[in-house]
This record gives sequence, structure tokens and C-alpha cells, in this order.
Amino acid sequence: MALTYEQAGALAWQWLEQIARVSETDDPERNGVTRLCATREHRQALDMLGGWMRDAGMALRSDNGANLIGRYASANPAAPTLLLGSHQDTVPHGGKYDGIMGVLLPLALVRYLDHHAIALPFHLDVVAFSDEEGTRFSSTLLGSKVLAGTFEPAMLDAQDDQGVTLRQALIDFGCDPERIADDRYAPGEVLGFVEVHIEQGPQLEAEGLPIGVVSAITGIERHKLSIHGLAGHAGTVPMHLRQDALVGAARVIGLVDELCKATDELVGVVGKIDNSPNGVNVIPQRTDLTIELRSPDDATRLAARETLLTRIDAALAELDLRLEQRLIYEQAAVQCAPALVSRLEAAVAASGVTPRTLFSGAGHDGLAMQALCDIGMLFLRCERGISHHPDEAIDPNDLGVAVEVLARFVTALAEAERW
Amino acid sequence: MALTYEQAGALAWQWLEQIARVSETDDPERNGVTRLCATREHRQALDMLGGWMRDAGMALRSDNGANLIGRYASANPAAPTLLLGSHQDTVPHGGKYDGIMGVLLPLALVRYLDHHAIALPFHLDVVAFSDEEGTRFSSTLLGSKVLAGTFEPAMLDAQDDQGVTLRQALIDFGCDPERIADDRYAPGEVLGFVEVHIEQGPQLEAEGLPIGVVSAITGIERHKLSIHGLAGHAGTVPMHLRQDALVGAARVIGLVDELCKATDELVGVVGKIDNSPNGVNVIPQRTDLTIELRSPDDATRLAARETLLTRIDAALAELDLRLEQRLIYEQAAVQCAPALVSRLEAAVAASGVTPRTLFSGAGHDGLAMQALCDIGMLFLRCERGISHHPDEAIDPNDLGVAVEVLARFVTALAEAERW
Repeated sequence: MALTYEQAGALAWQWLEQIARVSETDDPERNGVTRLCATREHRQALDMLGGWMRDAGMALRSDNGANLIGRYASANPAAPTLLLGSHQDTVPHGGKYDGIMGVLLPLALVRYLDHHAIALPFHLDVVAFSDEEGTRFSSTLLGSKVLAGTFEPAMLDAQDDQGVTLRQALIDFGCDPERIADDRYAPGEVLGFVEVHIEQGPQLEAEGLPIGVVSAITGIERHKLSIHGLAGHAGTVPMHLRQDALVGAARVIGLVDELCKATDELVGVVGKIDNSPNGVNVIPQRTDLTIELRSPDDATRLAARETLLTRIDAALAELDLRLEQRLIYEQAAVQCAPALVSRLEAAVAASGVTPRTLFSGAGHDGLAMQALCDIGMLFLRCERGISHHPDEAIDPNDLGVAVEVLARFVTALAEAERW
Repeated sequence: MALTYEQAGALAWQWLEQIARVSETDDPERNGVTRLCATREHRQALDMLGGWMRDAGMALRSDNGANLIGRYASANPAAPTLLLGSHQDTVPHGGKYDGIMGVLLPLALVRYLDHHAIALPFHLDVVAFSDEEGTRFSSTLLGSKVLAGTFEPAMLDAQDDQGVTLRQALIDFGCDPERIADDRYAPGEVLGFVEVHIEQGPQLEAEGLPIGVVSAITGIERHKLSIHGLAGHAGTVPMHLRQDALVGAARVIGLVDELCKATDELVGVVGKIDNSPNGVNVIPQRTDLTIELRSPDDATRLAARETLLTRIDAALAELDLRLEQRLIYEQAAVQCAPALVSRLEAAVAASGVTPRTLFSGAGHDGLAMQALCDIGMLFLRCERGISHHPDEAIDPNDLGVAVEVLARFVTALAEAERW
């Protein structure tokens, strides 16, 4: 009997359950999954993945950035390579799907292809990136930077909470950090990189869609604001003479919310606020807050920033408050390659699902891989948009849909490549 | 040489400088004075005050509400008692005069009386109230309620930011909270309560007057609000699906400010805000804040409350946020006793200052003491009306004027009582 998409999806589900137990914590449903870079759990996870890769007839390669790559090889050794994959690591007490699902779905795809003896005119490499979250060494996208050739050796000096350097951790893991530069793919040999990831948002669930196609990975900017007023007795200073810093902060929060709700493809938040002296009967003297803006379109984000800062200046001047403002972080947006987006949309449609594109509000390995090649992404719906949390959940049936979309994408690409 | 009013005022000035150093913060000029109820600093302040009281020949009493009372006793043990005093505590990073000046001026008065061997036909009790600001336990007028016999034992369950109850804090301070009811004055034994306080407003300074007589104390109410939203990834949840608690809080702050600016004889503030989880890239889950409204006219305040709560309900419903709201404090406006106002005006005039009456926009211990006896108040001018701030400042020469006014008031009252 031929393996169906559903059966391949069910296989991915079993693997997900099994590898969720490879964690510093026990009981992944209660305490989540904690699997950090270059740890015992990382080793166990790679051993487990390696076994499943071998079972599917893949050739294995471990690199000096602690990535594991399984190859479903083309008959033509000189063929180019399509990369599929995601990261094996998690945040502390993270979920069972963020990252690792994007390794296991391509493995289930390879099982499907192998079972149906589908030969490809390109190598299909499935990557388990070593570290995307940056939990242990505060350095995100480690694995993907190694493969893209953008890894900065200075990063090797980063230390974990115990003072162990990334260099030492990699050596202990069996890697040779001095040879990381050799592990990059040559740009010409790679057709593209496609990642499947949980959405980490509620849109697909709200629309009853199991899967969607990512158009871009958001750009991000963060600002720190300090609003300076004048403290005073909350009973004796007449309202018209007050310089209340928190009233200014409230205006800023309202302006951020209003602008983001009014501008397409822009989200923003004031997530952090600290008020001083923060007494029930004292006019606030100083309020610090952060503003974060995200957009898949950098021009939208930059225009929003300008509008916002102008409005904030006007509002605070009106309230006789002084502003200090500083841009503390900025990351440009990365577009998914239009050709890959179209092919992924076609594969979704061919699988009987209405194609829906959405942008990723979170960062992913594609941010690093775009330096190497075209990137594409698929989002699987997740429950209530929850991620980075033990409650992270998916519908198991969606895994079969994802295998089908990947299979249709890969075979259609193979057809195109044959010409 | 006989002690002059000016010399007694200079003594008060020295004491003020010395006790300002009893603070959680160092450098009172820069960082202000922080002296909270039932803390190490409270103990140090009472030890210092107790020493000065003993030097003036006063008998000391500490009560179970952490008040300290020094008695300048009448020769007649059965004589009634005149109460003078104010609070020893401060807001965080408060000034050097709010409260404590109203303890030290009566002490300087007692020095003056003692020096001039002026005997009184009533006991003169100088009180250092334990907690008027309510900074630590959000429960103002603790000390004066104990003396007035209106302390509610339920207040003992109030907790500070570390979860320590008022009950435990008092026990640790050496008090027996179960015996607080025994510490009240009997109404028949008290002639009245008179407090000297900085104005905390700009009127006396504007009119070139060192001292004024208070006609009434504003009514106050305080509310605690918890706004409940839903945390989420600040990049992946679309704006229209967010339940951002801090956006709701910003609306509340704006509504309070707007209403108070539009209504005569009403002031209000959101002084305290705490946001959770308070991360730069996390949608706020819960924001707690306080609202305070004040008016010398209770009807104005009650109408404003109704309008405000209706508007808040509507605004938060629109944002899909849930509100918990609780009135945590309410104090009606209080009129000063006309007889005491007249006597204080006469003492001011006898001291060569044009009598000026004004009402207090701040709450004071008199709010609680009026349940026990007639109350009267004197305001000393302060610089630019600033209070609850390290920049709080007075003219040192005004202290001598205040001692003279108090001395003339007390001796005139003694004359009247002799009849």
C-alpha cells in the first residue's frame, strides 16, 4: 500500500511527540520543551533526527556550527540543492512545534518521496539548524548564518549564563569552530530555502485555513522614550499648571495604537512602561516607555515612524513635557522571493486549500538565509496564536496537509527544473 | 537671655535639616526624603523626635498605631488637652517639610513656652502621626484615625509591595495592633487639633504672606483599577485582534485628565501604574492603576466619579478589555471649626501678618481628627507651590513667624480657658 499524505503527516506527529521529550524539562505539556544549543539535549535530538533521516535513505552531514543536514540526493551529483528545514532549539519552556516541526515535516516529505520512488533533479537537503532562538548565547540565527556564510567569528566569544563561550560549547559538541567558514553553501548551488513554521498568530485559525504562504518577514524597530514632567502634589497644583509625565505617556500609547490600527501592514506596541515616582497622590515626574513598530514593508514602517514622532512631539509640547527619544534596535524586512511565493501558493491551491498570504511578524532563519538564496515560508495554523509557551498547539491533521503542499511544491519545482 | 520667636524658628530649621537625613535615600536635596510607616527610618525619626521632646521636658507616649506623642503637661492632671502635630512620613522622594515641619514647629513652641516658663491650663500634646501619606499600605491617615478612634481593624490586612501586612509591620515595630482601640483620645478631653503644614500651593507666595489660615480641607477619593487584556506576541497578533491592557490604561488616564480639566473645583490624577508582563515585545496582559479625585465640594466630586466611571466602562468595552474597579479610599470634605479659624486669624493679625484664609486642596490628618474634635490649620508659604518633591522649599524666616502665631494662639486660648 502506498503511503498517503495523511500517513506521512501522522508520522510527523509521532516524531513530534517523541522528540518533545528530548528536553531539560520533563512533562512537555506542563513545563514545555527546553532544548538549547550545543547541550546534551541537542545531541540527543540530532541522534534521533539522524536515525529518522537514515531510515529515509538520506546521507547525513554534521557541520561545525552544530547543524545537522540530511540529503535526499539527486541522481546527478552536480545538481543544485533545494534547502528545507528549521531550527531544533527552543526558548526556555517553549512549545513542541516552534522550529522542530519545520525539520520533521520535510523528513515526512522525504519519506513520502522515497516511498513513491519520486526522483528529483535537485538535491533536497533537510536542515536542523542548531540555534535560531539565541536562548543560550543571546545570538540568534547561529545555524542559518553558518550555512549562509555570514557567521561572524566574534560571536564565538559570546558566553552562556555559566560563562561557557560559544567556541568552547561547539568544541565540546565535536565541532571545529575554526572551520565554520568552510560549511557555507556556495550561492550558485542553492535553488532556495523553504521553511515551514507555526504561524504564532491567530489569522489562519480565524479564517479556518490549515496553511498559509508567507510574503515577507517583518522589519522591526524599537525606541526608548523618556517623558519628563514635574512632580507635584496631586491636590494642590491646579490642573492647568500641571506637567504630568504619565498623561504624556498615555497620549503616546494612544498615538501608537491609533496609527498602527489606521495603517495597513503595520503593527506596534508600547509593551513596557515605568513611571516615577509612581505614588497614588503624586503628579508623575517622569515616565519611560518603549515603542516597537513592525512592518513587512520598510517604507511603511519608516513613514509611520516619522508620522508618529511628529505627532508625539506635538502632543508633548502641548502638555509642556520634555521628550528624550532613542532608536535602540532596527532590523529591515526581508521579502520572500515572488517566484517561491507563487509556487507555494500554487501548491496550496492544488492541495485544495484557499491560498492565503500573510506576513511573518516574528523573525526566522530566513532572515539569515536570504543572504544566500531566495527564501520562502509556509505557516501552519496554531491554536489561539500561542507560541513560546507550553500551551503551543496544532491540529494533527494539518500535518498531512503540509506534507501534501510540500510534495506538490517540490514535484512542481522538479517539473520546472527539468526544462 | 530669653529665647525669641526667631531663635525658636531657627531651632526648628536645624531640626528640619537634621531629620531630613533620616531617609531611605541619601542626599535629600537631590533625591528627596523617603520615610515610610513602620520602617527603620520611622524608628530613627521617632528616636530623634523623642530626644528633642525630652530635652523640652515633655512626657513621651508611643501608641499601638506607631504614633509618638509628647506632652507639655498642665499642672492640673484633669485638664483638657490641645493637640498640635502632623505626620512624620513622606511620599517616596518627597520633600523636607511636608508633615515633619508640623511636628517640629510645635516642639519649637514648647521650647519657647518652657523657656519663658509659660504654664498652660490645658495639656499640650505634640503628635508625630505614623502615616498620613499612605505610601506603604495605600491607607492614609493611619495615625490620626488611631487617635480619633476611627481606625478600622480591617485595614490591618492591607499589604505593602512585598506582601507584608500592616498588622505584621506594626508588630515588628513593637506595637500591639489588637490594642489600637485603647489609644484613642476621649472626645471630652480634647479642646481641638491644630496642624501647621506647608501650603503645597502657590497662593501665599503670590500674595507675599508667610502664613495663612485654612477654612476647609478638600474631599478625596481613590480608586484602584485592574485592566485585564490578553498577552501575545507583539509581532504576530494583528492590531484588530489585540486586547492590549496598556492601551486601555492610556484611555483611562486621558479620561481622568480631560474631565478634571473641564470641571471647576475638581482635580484628579493617575499617579501609579503597573504593567505586566512589561516586555518590549509582549502585548500587555494586565495594567493596574490608581485614580484620585479631589474637590472641596462633595457634590462636584461625586458627579465627576459617576461621569468618569461611565466613560471608562464604555472605553474599555470598546477595546474588549475587562475592568476590575474598587473604591479604596473616600474622605468627605471637612470644614475647619469657625471658632478655631477666628482664633488663628487673630493670632496671625497679632503677629503683624494680614490674615488670609484659604482652603486646602490636599488632605491632612485633620480629616480624621474632626471625628474627635474641632480642627484648625495654618499654612506656611512654600516655594512655587512645590511639594512631594526634593525641590520642596520654605523661607527659614517664616518658621519664626509660625512659632509666634502658635504662641499667640495658645496663650490667647489659655486666657479664654481660664475664664
